[in-house]
Amino acid sequence: MTSAAGARHRGMSHVTCHIAMSLDGYAAGPNQSPENPLGEGGMRLHEWAFDGATDADKEVRELITRGFGAYIMGRRMFGGGDGAWDESWRGWWGEDPPYHAPVYVLTHHEREPLQMQGGTTFHFVIDGIEPALEQARAAAGDADVAIAGGASTVQQYLAAGLLDELYLHIAPVVLGAGERLLEHVGDPRLEPVEVVATPAATHVRYRVIH
Amino acid sequence: MTSAAGARHRGMSHVTCHIAMSLDGYAAGPNQSPENPLGEGGMRLHEWAFDGATDADKEVRELITRGFGAYIMGRRMFGGGDGAWDESWRGWWGEDPPYHAPVYVLTHHEREPLQMQGGTTFHFVIDGIEPALEQARAAAGDADVAIAGGASTVQQYLAAGLLDELYLHIAPVVLGAGERLLEHVGDPRLEPVEVVATPAATHVRYRVIH
Repeated sequence: MTSAAGARHRGMSHVTCHIAMSLDGYAAGPNQSPENPLGEGGMRLHEWAFDGATDADKEVRELITRGFGAYIMGRRMFGGGDGAWDESWRGWWGEDPPYHAPVYVLTHHEREPLQMQGGTTFHFVIDGIEPALEQARAAAGDADVAIAGGASTVQQYLAAGLLDELYLHIAPVVLGAGERLLEHVGDPRLEPVEVVATPAATHVRYRVIH
Repeated sequence: MTSAAGARHRGMSHVTCHIAMSLDGYAAGPNQSPENPLGEGGMRLHEWAFDGATDADKEVRELITRGFGAYIMGRRMFGGGDGAWDESWRGWWGEDPPYHAPVYVLTHHEREPLQMQGGTTFHFVIDGIEPALEQARAAAGDADVAIAGGASTVQQYLAAGLLDELYLHIAPVVLGAGERLLEHVGDPRLEPVEVVATPAATHVRYRVIH
C-alpha cells in the first residue's frame, strides 16, 4: 500500500503528470542549456500544443492546463542554474506564470517563497519529494496535484509509487538522444485508460496501479 | 526520392513493419538467449496478442498476420546462433511456420533455401538489405512486404528510407533495459494515421513520409 493509494481511499487529491515524450522515449533533446532548456529538437515534442494542433489537441491542452490545485517541479525546470540561488531569477515564464496556483520547486538550496502575479507562488522545498507532495496536497485541498516535470522529477515520483496517473503525449518524433523519461522508475503497473489520437500526437492517459 | 517512394509510384508493394515496443522504447528485454529469445520480460510486450486480448487486439493481430507476400527478418530472429550455419536449425516455429510465404533471412553466411510446410520457404540473403528487399518484392508481386524484425533489421530499413509504414504496438510496460527499437534510425518523418487503443496496448500505425 503506497501513500498515493491510501490518499485516494481518503478522498484526497489525485497526483497526475502530463508530459510529452518522443517515440524513442525522450522528454527533452540533447544539449539542454539556459538558452535552450528543451534541448536540441525538444520543441518538436510540443508541436501538438502549438502549430498544427487539431481541435482534439486543443481540448487535451485545455484539460491539462487548468484546474490543478498545486504543482511540483524540479529545480532545472524552474531554471536559474545550479548551486545557491541567484535571486534575480524568477523562472522562465515572466511575472504572470501560467500556473495560477502554488508551485513547489524541489531544490537543495533554501529560498523565500516568490509570489508572482495571477495566483502563482513558487515555494522552494529542500527536504525531498515526499514533504513537497505533502505541502502540495495541503495547498490543493480537493483539487488535483500535477507533477510539472522535468523528467527526473517525474521519475522520482513514479519510482516512489506516489503518482496516480501518467498522461503521455507521444509525439511522432525520433530525437535520437536527450533526456530519457522512463528510466530509473522500476517496474510500474500502468493501464491505458484513455487515448486521444491526432496527427500531431498520441495522447495516452495511464493509470498507475498501486 | 527513395526507392520506397519510387516503388509506391510504380504501384509496387508497400513495405511495412509491425513490432511491439515497451513504453521506454525496447523491442526486447535484456539478456536475450537461445532459451529466452525475447529477453527478460520481453514476453510482456506481446501480452496484447495472447492473454487479455480484447476483440480490438484480436482484429489487429489478424490484420498483421495474414496477407503479406513476403517477409524479411534478421538472422537473430531466425535463430540458430552466430557464425556458420548449424543446418539442423530450422527456425523457432516448427515445421509449419506462421508465415506461409517466402521469408528472406539477412545473414553473412550462405545457406540453401529451406522449404517448410504451409508455404513458408526461408531464403538466406548474404548481400545486404537492399537485395533482400528486391527479392522480397519480386516474390510478393502485388502483395505487401513485411519486415518481421528484430530491432536491428527494422532500424536498417527505416534508416535507409525503405520502410513505408511502421505499426507500433506500444505495450504499457517499462522494461528498463534490453534492445532499443528506435536508435540509429536518423530522423524519419512519421505521421500517425491510425490508432487502436485497448487496455493491453496502444496500436499506432505511422506512415513514413519520404
